[in-house]
Amino acid sequence: MKGQFITLEGTEGGGKSTNLQYICTWLQEKGIEVVITREPGGTEIGEAIRGILLNPEYKTMQPDTELLLMFAARAQHLQEKILPALGQGKWVVSDRFTDASYAYQGAARGMAYERIQQIETWVQQGVQPNMTFVFDLPIEIGMARVASRGGAIDRFEEEDRSFFEKVRQAYLHRAEQAPQRYHVLDASRSLDEVQASIERQLLSLLAEA
Amino acid sequence: MKGQFITLEGTEGGGKSTNLQYICTWLQEKGIEVVITREPGGTEIGEAIRGILLNPEYKTMQPDTELLLMFAARAQHLQEKILPALGQGKWVVSDRFTDASYAYQGAARGMAYERIQQIETWVQQGVQPNMTFVFDLPIEIGMARVASRGGAIDRFEEEDRSFFEKVRQAYLHRAEQAPQRYHVLDASRSLDEVQASIERQLLSLLAEA
Repeated sequence: MKGQFITLEGTEGGGKSTNLQYICTWLQEKGIEVVITREPGGTEIGEAIRGILLNPEYKTMQPDTELLLMFAARAQHLQEKILPALGQGKWVVSDRFTDASYAYQGAARGMAYERIQQIETWVQQGVQPNMTFVFDLPIEIGMARVASRGGAIDRFEEEDRSFFEKVRQAYLHRAEQAPQRYHVLDASRSLDEVQASIERQLLSLLAEA
Repeated sequence: MKGQFITLEGTEGGGKSTNLQYICTWLQEKGIEVVITREPGGTEIGEAIRGILLNPEYKTMQPDTELLLMFAARAQHLQEKILPALGQGKWVVSDRFTDASYAYQGAARGMAYERIQQIETWVQQGVQPNMTFVFDLPIEIGMARVASRGGAIDRFEEEDRSFFEKVRQAYLHRAEQAPQRYHVLDASRSLDEVQASIERQLLSLLAEA
């Protein structure tokens, strides 16, 4: 069986972390070796880059800088962790990947998709996830969930509602363009309902792999 | 008078730092406002990126990651510091710039120049230094000078002689391609002789500016 690359996307509070765990446990119960990871980060060097990206003190960070840092971390992530794992037949499940760059740096910060695509092609040379779950829910609900968690907020979480609305719409738009890869999940439903949807998709991916 | 952008390049031990100071003092005595800077770095965010780039613990850093980090720092440097200063008529003198990416990540690490050029175009959109001094000297002499300084060595200084020989040859080759911009200085001469050469070039740049 070939290793499969699954990514989880969506605005904050949509349940990515909880369902990342669910997906991994589900796969492991099927006897699949799973690598759990996240972006930006996923490697020691990538996590150091993440530290710069999320630092709320760096208010002067330019959009170009932000995008290049995201892809610097991604290049390391792909070459050090994701591609070797897939090559060994493992499945890789990542909390965010390149769709997030289109949604956050593209739609929300206003960088032209074409510019993002140039760097994507340079770094990924065609590598794409096999399946992407988009955890979709109204921004208010997600923000309320995040607020109830408490804790310090990072450079992205400081943005306002309209920023995240753009992120949400960008994910939905990308999912429409490639329905064979994306599965949009209504994340405002109960966890049981969301996970039943996830399981159906994983069963179909498993059948193909 | 238009602001001019001067860069200093070369392998270690060639006297870049000493002559950076000389150039700045010389220009200031002519009544020119000068911004001294360096790469990778030059801004708060860029210096944080520099910290990752030079960290000798990051032995698994991929060539793509290294190049994208260099240009992430450079994008920030250009937009936050270099371009605003030039726009105000100041002169900018930088210890290294994009030529270093071709020499180190290209010639020495083996990344195709075409791949570097794609990122250069994406980030710089045509911005280039007005004048570049290449401090050229045999690698052995430079290494001996660096060793005599003592201190900790960074991720680049750990490389061997053949690495720096490739860097040196790349600088010389680039200088040959665009003699109107580059001035190769024989840095094995006495400081007085080197600075006399620098002064001649500065006078001609000043006459044109």
